[in-house]
Amino acid sequence: MVSEYMYDLGTRKSPIGTFVAIGRQKEEELGAENIFNFGLGAPAVPMPEEYREELIRLLKEEDQVKLHTYTMGGGVWAAREAIAADLNRRFDAKAAAGDIYMTVGAAPALCAVINAIRNNEEEEIVLLAPYFSEYVAFIRGARMKYTEVRTLEPDFRLDLDAVKASITPNTAALIINSPNNPSGAIYPPEDLKRLSEILTEKSREFSRTIYLISDEPYREVLLDDVEVPFMANFYDNTIVCYSYSKSLSIAGERMGYILVPKANEDHDRLLTAIGGASKALGVSNAPSLFQYALIKCAGKHSDVELYRKNRAVLYKALTEMGYECTWPKGTFYMMVKTLEEDWAFCRRAAEMGLILVPCSGFGFPGYVRVALCVSEDTAVRSIPAFKKLLESYK
Amino acid sequence: MVSEYMYDLGTRKSPIGTFVAIGRQKEEELGAENIFNFGLGAPAVPMPEEYREELIRLLKEEDQVKLHTYTMGGGVWAAREAIAADLNRRFDAKAAAGDIYMTVGAAPALCAVINAIRNNEEEEIVLLAPYFSEYVAFIRGARMKYTEVRTLEPDFRLDLDAVKASITPNTAALIINSPNNPSGAIYPPEDLKRLSEILTEKSREFSRTIYLISDEPYREVLLDDVEVPFMANFYDNTIVCYSYSKSLSIAGERMGYILVPKANEDHDRLLTAIGGASKALGVSNAPSLFQYALIKCAGKHSDVELYRKNRAVLYKALTEMGYECTWPKGTFYMMVKTLEEDWAFCRRAAEMGLILVPCSGFGFPGYVRVALCVSEDTAVRSIPAFKKLLESYK
Repeated sequence: MVSEYMYDLGTRKSPIGTFVAIGRQKEEELGAENIFNFGLGAPAVPMPEEYREELIRLLKEEDQVKLHTYTMGGGVWAAREAIAADLNRRFDAKAAAGDIYMTVGAAPALCAVINAIRNNEEEEIVLLAPYFSEYVAFIRGARMKYTEVRTLEPDFRLDLDAVKASITPNTAALIINSPNNPSGAIYPPEDLKRLSEILTEKSREFSRTIYLISDEPYREVLLDDVEVPFMANFYDNTIVCYSYSKSLSIAGERMGYILVPKANEDHDRLLTAIGGASKALGVSNAPSLFQYALIKCAGKHSDVELYRKNRAVLYKALTEMGYECTWPKGTFYMMVKTLEEDWAFCRRAAEMGLILVPCSGFGFPGYVRVALCVSEDTAVRSIPAFKKLLESYK
Repeated sequence: MVSEYMYDLGTRKSPIGTFVAIGRQKEEELGAENIFNFGLGAPAVPMPEEYREELIRLLKEEDQVKLHTYTMGGGVWAAREAIAADLNRRFDAKAAAGDIYMTVGAAPALCAVINAIRNNEEEEIVLLAPYFSEYVAFIRGARMKYTEVRTLEPDFRLDLDAVKASITPNTAALIINSPNNPSGAIYPPEDLKRLSEILTEKSREFSRTIYLISDEPYREVLLDDVEVPFMANFYDNTIVCYSYSKSLSIAGERMGYILVPKANEDHDRLLTAIGGASKALGVSNAPSLFQYALIKCAGKHSDVELYRKNRAVLYKALTEMGYECTWPKGTFYMMVKTLEEDWAFCRRAAEMGLILVPCSGFGFPGYVRVALCVSEDTAVRSIPAFKKLLESYK
């Protein structure tokens, strides 16, 4: 008998999936050149040239049996050493290779961590809205609950009083994502310091460790000259989940890692439980070739100038027309305030060839997410469609 | 708080993991040249040259943004078409691209399927011993139960009466693995026909669909001139889980698929639930580059002549000494009867530099698994150590 639970999860179309599918249909109706697809958060710039050259070199020169075999036990040691060295250099992370567990992207990293800290069905994870919509599937998959806490408009900073109020004796963790998908906000150090105090107080109050799960796929996608505070430097019981999808433009290749900082009071037990959960989820081995190429390229990132240009073009055009937009400091997303309920707004936009994603799917109704990872040509040519959409409301 | 359940799973060393670790330790003690490591089932031959060339060509010539982006929705369509065409040509499988869901290897394929058919904690999966030890972790991960049914010595054929007796109203599925790891047995058509009748009868008796999960990573690793019956041609409610780890020697790259045959009465609902489960497990995207290279190479396999040679060398030497060995028709494993309890036997063997795996970890005590995926040199040079081991019991 088919699982009702998983069938139900399979039928729940994410807002992204829904509008990407509508986009494909509209392409057939109106022609691809008339569709401006801002739906999917897929990199629009290539991987760094050094990384591509290293992949080719490995395939040409190295022992192919060793290169493509199981990596086991947390991943390729030299790759983990290179990652630790890069984190230490940039963030004074005090990380060692053994603190890092390579994963098949950030999604199974998050799933392994969530399962590794789950003790019963009543436990909750706090999400800071707006949040990446798939978190809900990962939490449901682990058969846990979640609570939403909204961040504060207009700049989407943390509502620390609301965070404090949301924590209950059942709170297992809080997921933080900075730079944030979809708001583009980077939480400032003073807020993280206060968040850390709250989590410490509440851990003491409820006699349990409340973990901070820091999901960092956009850590290297910075559009302004800003620094992203390294979460683990603010709160000891942090667990970092990282993905190279965006920083190396290899979203399809599935490469990420979990970092359990030495300062985490459950360091050893967590790493063991993460290993157990990865085994139980069937994902205890991250792709080998792409790990080996990291040894040389752990500190390399794709050039994000295109996203910066698209932000400039679209922000200027849209605000001049009269839209209210965010100015994302990081990520490649811009949020735009809608002129009616956000799903209806996205459906109307799709009729005009504009594929946007309603933010109610990210726990923040009243906005759409505009993915800036498109060609410059798409960004420029979409402007009349945005104009037409706005005018249709007058 | 760390999950006790996952921590426990993380501390349970598999028999393979235990003896691979002992092997590493012994290498340091005795020198690598004195260790004959038959522990790990990792390919010892390279990927087909055409596949390697295609990987390099893709990295050199194709649009790198498209090549490495999310594949979504079950995988790269043209790769799935190529796989379906290959299955149809060789097995008359009547498969279409839409029946195939690309996965991050066989492990998450099995996990997604197990979760997609799981309805409650009382449900059981029947395992045919000897069986791949990780099945237990996958079933535990889904919080289900399992029952073991032993196959029959000396040739490890199905004990069909025992299979029939093992099925209860809680039986959700039976996992079959032919060629079998570790016995090397290939189940003959007449046994599969009878198995299908039993599953059909029992499904009717208990008013539920009992699925046959066919785990086929060794389908192309054939050491004799034999055919592997295609399981889905015998029982409609089959779900195929495949891995390219062994057939393309890319165990570390994680590439596999699920095939839900059109004849499966829950075809559409299963594919939806598999999509839901993959999302919940965080693994809805198989590595992209290796999928694209399949378009040209879906029918290519690594040359298994080395495994054949090692089988010949070791079978002859060991049986002449007095060991009782299986003659595997497929896979790259040989089972050897132990001369005392199998863990103790493996520990004694390790003292002599021989790394073997106890089959009690595969549900079949009294044997060890000898992985034939080693260099010819290792196989030949190991013979005196096997002799010494035998003599230590005299």
